[in-house]
Formats: sequence, structure tokens, C-alpha cells
Amino acid sequence: MVATGAVPVRPDLPGAHAAGIFGVQTLTDGLAVRAALTRGLPAHAVVVGAGYIGLELAEALCAWGVRVTVIDRGPAPMASLDPDMSGLLTSAMHRFGMTLRLEQTVTGFETRAGRVTAVVTDHGTVPAELVILGLGVRPNTDLAARAGIPLGVSGAIAVDQQMRTGADGVWAAGDCAEKFHRVSRRPVAIALGTYANKEGRIAGINIGGGSARFPGVLGTAVTKICDVEVGRTGLSEAEARDAGFATTGVAVDSTTRAGYYPGAQPIRVKLIAERRTGQLLGAQIVGEEGAAKRIDVLATALWHGTTVDDLINTDLSYAPPFSPLWDPVLIAARKTSQQVNTDRSCKPSTPPVQDDQP
Amino acid sequence: MVATGAVPVRPDLPGAHAAGIFGVQTLTDGLAVRAALTRGLPAHAVVVGAGYIGLELAEALCAWGVRVTVIDRGPAPMASLDPDMSGLLTSAMHRFGMTLRLEQTVTGFETRAGRVTAVVTDHGTVPAELVILGLGVRPNTDLAARAGIPLGVSGAIAVDQQMRTGADGVWAAGDCAEKFHRVSRRPVAIALGTYANKEGRIAGINIGGGSARFPGVLGTAVTKICDVEVGRTGLSEAEARDAGFATTGVAVDSTTRAGYYPGAQPIRVKLIAERRTGQLLGAQIVGEEGAAKRIDVLATALWHGTTVDDLINTDLSYAPPFSPLWDPVLIAARKTSQQVNTDRSCKPSTPPVQDDQP
Repeated sequence: MVATGAVPVRPDLPGAHAAGIFGVQTLTDGLAVRAALTRGLPAHAVVVGAGYIGLELAEALCAWGVRVTVIDRGPAPMASLDPDMSGLLTSAMHRFGMTLRLEQTVTGFETRAGRVTAVVTDHGTVPAELVILGLGVRPNTDLAARAGIPLGVSGAIAVDQQMRTGADGVWAAGDCAEKFHRVSRRPVAIALGTYANKEGRIAGINIGGGSARFPGVLGTAVTKICDVEVGRTGLSEAEARDAGFATTGVAVDSTTRAGYYPGAQPIRVKLIAERRTGQLLGAQIVGEEGAAKRIDVLATALWHGTTVDDLINTDLSYAPPFSPLWDPVLIAARKTSQQVNTDRSCKPSTPPVQDDQP
Repeated sequence: MVATGAVPVRPDLPGAHAAGIFGVQTLTDGLAVRAALTRGLPAHAVVVGAGYIGLELAEALCAWGVRVTVIDRGPAPMASLDPDMSGLLTSAMHRFGMTLRLEQTVTGFETRAGRVTAVVTDHGTVPAELVILGLGVRPNTDLAARAGIPLGVSGAIAVDQQMRTGADGVWAAGDCAEKFHRVSRRPVAIALGTYANKEGRIAGINIGGGSARFPGVLGTAVTKICDVEVGRTGLSEAEARDAGFATTGVAVDSTTRAGYYPGAQPIRVKLIAERRTGQLLGAQIVGEEGAAKRIDVLATALWHGTTVDDLINTDLSYAPPFSPLWDPVLIAARKTSQQVNTDRSCKPSTPPVQDDQP
């Protein structure tokens, strides 16, 4: 059973191994950052990478009273969201006092006596006595590769639905193992604790003589940054196009409770659907308290291959403390369905060429 | 278009029309109760019926500082829940100072000068200067019946999926119209604003020359009583047995967030599954903040006819502020699946008689 997990990506840049630069993956990594903060707060910290680990660490550093700059190559934080969904997130980051440097690439680190003093980017140098690398992880396949166990196209260990590798009697599960994406129909490497747990259970059942299959993933994830909640499932618009789908993406703004009910918070729901069939391909939610866990409704619908038309009538619950009468998820389905039907009626009016025409 | 809604059930009991006895269905009904409270708080109030309207009113009366007794015929409050799910609810009601009289039947009302003074039950008399009837509603079909429009077995106006009644050119939608229950496969009368809205939309599309169908309901509902949230979808165990299913019902206790995360609240999730196939038939959730809206995940799974085995691997989101690593919904699916498999392996070991045996 290979369960070697993942290792944080550390860029091959000048100074990347200086003291004061931390990758954060394990509990021990977190303790190391805390120990550094306890020894004395840095005047400036930089988080490289605005993914969910980077942003969670940026929030934690703000809570310690450290001035934080977040640097990311992309046009918006949280690259797993489409850029039109990140507005609430960006304003929350500013409200919490973070500086956000987007579309900037880190090219190296300045050091003095082996300790980091600044992060160098293609847009200038940012002082930093503490740096967090939030650049994601890669499957830790070193042992498997040395043993000749086949890796998949994603770079993770290739496994079948029973979590068997290509080597007889060898199984793999978790971040080191490749997953099947149920929407793109492609092998992917996505490092999430939920998958590691589910796959471990499947592998265990099979190794123990039982029979179980892991039916694949949707890339469902949720996080909380400052007071903003973010959820996503399936494919983003960019991922859907990359997977060969023609897409329609519609975002709606609503509230987490009936508008008149105390504690109603903003919620923005975006659905990505196949342009002609209305097949749901993915969904994203950004909002405040009570917003993001609704992504599970969309993940469940996506799991069953729903269309936005079917989603409209799905019998979701309503009471004023929990939702407007039309749940934001259903409002998004209605708007997306309208868009799909508009796109459909705007097809070129010349009849399609038929193979069997004379 | 018949959209006559529903009327509150008012029992045919001595004194039931006395002043101080209120049915609560419309905004005006609510204003009438508030006006009565504003004129002078009653020493005692009684709520007859521990359904969600009755309990919401009981909570509101407590908030006004009125001493409230809730009387219900059933063994537990909220008859739409199985009795094993109501513990958290009952203790919250006690904590908020309500008196709960269960398994007691109201037989009449004592009055003085046309005003209610007490509620008479088969277990004694309860003083009450204000009474709320929370006995549910019945479809308001008077107009339709007088016009000869056929009613269904549920007592509501029979409609097809396009919301057409049996009379040519006449449509109906909302509380007055019968619904198709997707799990019991039976016609039902369930009065919910979500259905009224969805059905109105479908009827409107069809009346306007378009084409849309309403695919039925699951009976999904959510409410908040005191600090307890309650959600349900599909069939309860009693309803499932009544509909002819052999059932397995498993309840699990978990937390709304990772156990170590601030604000983690108790949540109890119960799944009702068909005993041999593991087909999901219904679900119930009782818990504190952040618990009940999870019922939508189960409603969506039920909408698509899931089994508990498939539910286990559904890709729901996880982060410590939102869920334990295994979402309580998935833990419930695992436990129910184990129970289904145990039941299955405990089948009588004699082989079943085959029709085609010699």
C-alpha cells in the first residue's frame, strides 16, 4: 500500500532554501511557522501563491498583527475560481489589511547571512523577513517511480477504481494516487483530505478481500478567508473550455437568508453549463456566513449528471432563517437555463448538413 | 387559473370560534396576534399542534415573555420527524421555558363572555387567554369543487405535470393543487411556498404557450425553533412503511464543523433507506447553527434516486470551519450502508424459490 502523500512545490529559484522561507503542508510545518512568529514578529511577511493554503496562512499572519503581502501570477486570487467570482474575496483581503500583488512572478529571494530579507518579482522587490510558499503540492511518487510502478499522465500513481496500481499486489491511495475527474473524464492529481480518506477506505476494503470502487472526483472544495467563504465544484469556465466543452457561465447575486431576516449575508453563485444541452459542468460560490457549504448541493447534482433545467425544480428547503424562497442555487439554475435557451435559439438558422442527404 | 391556496384547519369543537383563538396562515393573521399581544400580554398562552407553524409561534410568544404551553396528540413534537430525532428539539423547548403536553387531545375550549379562558384536553384543563391553532392547513378547493373540477385522493385539485386540471382550459397551482410525491409515488397535498412558486412558474409557462413540467416533490422542509434547526426530506420511517417499503433507519451524531474548530455545534442526521437495495427514501436533520440546510444535499441525492452506497463517495466539500473531514451526511450514509449490508447478509439462507425451477 503506497500512501506517500504529496510534497509542497518549492520553486527552483535563487535563495529559495533560505531560512525564513516556509512551505506549509504538515502540522509540523505549521508549528515551525508559529515558532518563528513566537521568536519575534517580522516587520513584513510575503505569501507566494493566492491559493487556499496561501490565503489561509495570510489570514493567520494578519491575525498575528504581521503586515502581509500576497503575490500571485494570476489575474485574481484563488485560481480555482473564475476571475468574475473573486470580487468579494479581494475586497475582504483589502479590508483585513493585506496587500495583493497580482500578475507578478517571483524570480528569486534576497538573503542576508542565509536568511531571507526580500522577495524579488518581475515588478520589483518586496521586503520580507518571513515568506510562506503556497504554491500547491505535487504527488510524492519518488518511492513508487523508483520501484517501477507506472505513473499516470497527471504525474500521480496510476490506479484503477479499486485503487490497484499497475504492479501486482501494490495499491495506492491519497495525494500520491491519480484520480478520475467525473466531468472532464480525465485523470487528475488533486490533493484533498476527503479523497485520501475515501480512497483509503476503498483500498482497505479491497485489500481485506471485499469489493469496492472509487467512482471519481469533482474537485469540490470549500474554504474561508477572512470573513469570506468560497466553494467550488466541477470545472471552472477555463477548465471546461480546456476539456473541450462549449460553455455558458452565469453568476447571480442573492442573500443567504430571506432579505428581511436578521443576518442575511451576500452570496454569489455561478453555474457553468454546457452551452447546448444545459448539462451542469461546474459551480462556484463566494459569499459571507452561510454561503459556501451550499456548494454541496451543486456537487451532489453534478455527481448525478444533472442539467440546469432539472436543477430548477429540485426540492430544496426554504425557511426565512436559511434561504430566500428561491434558494440562490435555484435562482442561478433559472438564469443559466434562460441563457442556455437563448443560446440555443440563436443557433444559425441554416439547417445542419445531414450525412444521409442526397 | 385556480390559485386559491389553503385554509387553516379549525377543529369542530365547543368554543373553537371564541375570541382569543387564532389560526395563523396569512400576514394579516400574524398582525392580529401581534395586535392582541400589544393590547395586553396574556398570563398563559396555549399553542395547539406542535408542527412547524405552531412551534414558530410558540417561540415568538416566549420572546414576548408569555408563558406558553404546547399541546400535541403525538408522542413527540414535529410529527414530520421520526420520534428518535426530536430529543434536541424537546430539550430546547424546555430550555426556552415552554411546557410541552404530548399525547393529549384537545376536546374543547372554555370561554367567558365569548372569550377563551382555557383549553380542555383529555388530560385536564389548561388556562389560556390566548390560543394559537397550529393544526395545519387543508387545500382551499371550495370554488373548484363547486365548479365541478375534479379533486384528487389527497383532497387537493387533481392536476397533471403541466398543472392542467380536469376541466378544459383550467389550471391550478399552489396549496390548492395536488402534488406527486417522487418517493412514495403517491398524490399528496403538501402546502409549501416553494411548491406554490415553482408550480406557478410552470403553469405560467404553459398558459403562455410554452412547455414545462413539474416533476413532483420530496416534502423537503426546514425550520428553526429556538436555537434548534430541523430539516427533513422524503419519507419518514412511518411514512415509508405506510408506502409499503421495508426500511432501515440509522441516525448518527456529529458536529457541524471540525470538532476542534470554534463554533462546532451538534448535528444528528438520520437516513431512511430501503432495507434490501439501500435506496434512499428519506432523511432528517436536527441540530444547532449550520445543521439543517444540509438537508438540501440529501434532497438533491434523493431527487436523483441515489443509494446510500453511492452517497458515501459523493464529493462533498470539507474545511474545518464547515464540516468534519467526513461530512455528517456521509457518516450517516456509511452507517446506513453497513446496516443495509448487515440486513442483507441476515436474509434467510434458504435459496429463494425460482419460477423457472422444475
